Amino acid sequence: MNAAQYFQRNFMVNDLGHLVIGGCDVVELAKTYGTPLYILDEQLIRANCRQYADTLAELYPDFEVIYASKAFLTKALCGLLHQEGLGLDVVSGGELYTALEAGFPPERIYFHGNNKSHEELTLALRHQVGHIMVDNLMELETLIQLAKETGTRPRVIFRLTPGVEAHTHAYDQTGQLDSKFGMDIQQGTALQAVKIALGCPQLQLEGFHAHIGSQIFEVAPYEATIEILGEFMAMVREKTGFLASTLDLGGGLGIKYNKNEMPMPIPEVMKRIAQKVRATMGALNYPLPRLILEPGRSIIGDAGTTLYTIGTIKEIPGIRKYVAVDGGMADNPRVALYQAVYEAVIANKMNAQLSETVTIAGKCCETGDILIRDLPVAPPEPGDLLAVLATGAYNYSMASNYNRLPRPAVVLVASGRAELIVARETYAQLVQNDLIPERLKIAAGTIAR
Amino acid sequence: MNAAQYFQRNFMVNDLGHLVIGGCDVVELAKTYGTPLYILDEQLIRANCRQYADTLAELYPDFEVIYASKAFLTKALCGLLHQEGLGLDVVSGGELYTALEAGFPPERIYFHGNNKSHEELTLALRHQVGHIMVDNLMELETLIQLAKETGTRPRVIFRLTPGVEAHTHAYDQTGQLDSKFGMDIQQGTALQAVKIALGCPQLQLEGFHAHIGSQIFEVAPYEATIEILGEFMAMVREKTGFLASTLDLGGGLGIKYNKNEMPMPIPEVMKRIAQKVRATMGALNYPLPRLILEPGRSIIGDAGTTLYTIGTIKEIPGIRKYVAVDGGMADNPRVALYQAVYEAVIANKMNAQLSETVTIAGKCCETGDILIRDLPVAPPEPGDLLAVLATGAYNYSMASNYNRLPRPAVVLVASGRAELIVARETYAQLVQNDLIPERLKIAAGTIAR
Repeated sequence: MNAAQYFQRNFMVNDLGHLVIGGCDVVELAKTYGTPLYILDEQLIRANCRQYADTLAELYPDFEVIYASKAFLTKALCGLLHQEGLGLDVVSGGELYTALEAGFPPERIYFHGNNKSHEELTLALRHQVGHIMVDNLMELETLIQLAKETGTRPRVIFRLTPGVEAHTHAYDQTGQLDSKFGMDIQQGTALQAVKIALGCPQLQLEGFHAHIGSQIFEVAPYEATIEILGEFMAMVREKTGFLASTLDLGGGLGIKYNKNEMPMPIPEVMKRIAQKVRATMGALNYPLPRLILEPGRSIIGDAGTTLYTIGTIKEIPGIRKYVAVDGGMADNPRVALYQAVYEAVIANKMNAQLSETVTIAGKCCETGDILIRDLPVAPPEPGDLLAVLATGAYNYSMASNYNRLPRPAVVLVASGRAELIVARETYAQLVQNDLIPERLKIAAGTIAR
Repeated sequence: MNAAQYFQRNFMVNDLGHLVIGGCDVVELAKTYGTPLYILDEQLIRANCRQYADTLAELYPDFEVIYASKAFLTKALCGLLHQEGLGLDVVSGGELYTALEAGFPPERIYFHGNNKSHEELTLALRHQVGHIMVDNLMELETLIQLAKETGTRPRVIFRLTPGVEAHTHAYDQTGQLDSKFGMDIQQGTALQAVKIALGCPQLQLEGFHAHIGSQIFEVAPYEATIEILGEFMAMVREKTGFLASTLDLGGGLGIKYNKNEMPMPIPEVMKRIAQKVRATMGALNYPLPRLILEPGRSIIGDAGTTLYTIGTIKEIPGIRKYVAVDGGMADNPRVALYQAVYEAVIANKMNAQLSETVTIAGKCCETGDILIRDLPVAPPEPGDLLAVLATGAYNYSMASNYNRLPRPAVVLVASGRAELIVARETYAQLVQNDLIPERLKIAAGTIAR
């Protein structure tokens, strides 16, 4: 069995036995751009966007797909997402700045976050960002005040806590509303916020949002959420006369990180969600709201591959073979953070038998910097290239300079063409903000204490 | 009970009830430098350095204390450590670059790491870094070749796997040698490496190193390690005639993150280590080697404080009160990574009763971004300052731009004077390496798909 057979992904392998992504031989990419290297497959990103948009276009009258920027955001990706017709969900001034710098239309930006600062909200209002997703009562008051000060009239969507929490293969629906995010329905906070907003000419309340988790593999928790939000909307209509024009179901669809994970196809999920919204609103005699979805991981995750060079190989007889690569927890903290299970292939030996089982160690000076345990691989040698799969989401965006490792470059590949969209960090950039007080400067030849 | 009483640290509190660090009122620091802000207490760093150096100077004829840069490294800190007479343990080209940029004497730098690249080793050789800490046989071969190519003759210390693994309050000594670091003694790899080095005129072998863990609270595992390394050194002498001149016991001493942790005083640990080395070497009739220690956390950890501004406060009646700050897992990933337990105070209300219990939530758009659970605090209000304690180590050095949050500034305080040693990252720096291919640029007024 070889890597292409074992991993069953949409790999291409060329005559040299090299992994090919977006028409580019990754061995050539390593030569040109160095390693570690994040590789993004443009056509796969576009296909993922269209799985949402094209399916919804057939099933539902009015919708918007907004990309969860926290998964991965650069200026180039903003351009690509704009071409695909997606909006942007941003959660900070930095994400908003990136989008604005790329020329992303502010009216298609949605500003999330549990603790937006006055400076961030002001930035958003000043640039007339499309929607502010209001998280809590305190933020609602702040926003009303800032809207008055800036003379703006923001459109707002309220983040609610539906009491549904999805896990990978299960979900809880409880009375427990212990979350740092959102306004609860059960204790009346959400209705209170609606009444405040309706009484305030500065705000244009459009509807409601809920986000129930990450890396979700089932539709049932979304269906439960639709029912809860539908009932809430009907209750609000009854008590205040307000008709919500927007229903935002957040993101959270899972992707396949390894062979044990089998997510449902996105079109199938969209179909069931659209059906459930239609059925729920129909039963409540409620006009169909605009439907918003906020995918991040399922747009960018499987389109990303991290390419490393194998360095030290250390066999401890009878125990384990460690294969060290030139990156690790600094460029992919998800293993240490979430015990994520990744798969990888030796990218220059795609047709070789997977005759060994090894542990992939990172370069960081920390015992916990292990990327993959017990990985079947072709016989590894120093200088080989290891491609770790499905690293598009929450890798570059969570990368650090731990151990003062420069962050890798990001290259976008499509139709045999590779384009650098993030240049590799330099050593000089690592110290660009460092300042040395005069009294701490080391004079040449100084004798230390 | 107020914060100063409860936390029993060496706080100063001024007449305004404000926390004072290094003679600086942190409320003033927040006004001047903004938040989040890392504050480093210079005198405490120097005192920590001296706890090692002064104690060892009394107890042991020849020693060197080398600081583990991965805990926190900037150019200014290099100058301070140099003044205190410490050497530097670096683990990457980036750490080495930082030290060299600061003018740190290369001969006092020790280069660690399980997977040093050819480029990094060449950089170290070219700058005549004092010692290369050789991790494995493959690296040994690479180093010999690079030494020939560069015409250098590096001094080397071998990293060994002693089979001792320390945990916070216990340690294992087993036959298990399952580590990505070092060369095993039991299976003969270490002796094999010694023989290779002794037969090679390019290398100057000086001795042996072991590092047994992190955040260690007991001396016994160090004592066990000294015995194992002593026996190995005696065995090597017997088989090859080689006398090691250096014994490096690594780092790992724990610090007090919270009231449940009670580390031993550093002088007491140094005393017992020195005694054990003397006793072991005496029993083996072995000349006392130069002793090296590699503290990181215990030099910088408790000297660091992170100052945040409190924003949103959200009370879920009967469940929990969430107090959100303007930073979180991006500037302190240790809670999410290691389930670290931190303590904090409301820095502008130091004399107020700790009458509430709250959960400190970070700003990141992730449910797991909780900094502290169930913290007793003075009644919090938006705009209050929260000071999280003992954040000097593995906070700035592991910080990311997750959610595109700029990394905080670092300010060094001493004797009432504050000096910026790392400037706050700007939004512009977040995108400084971004490139947009022409075809992905968004033209003003573009109609998206």
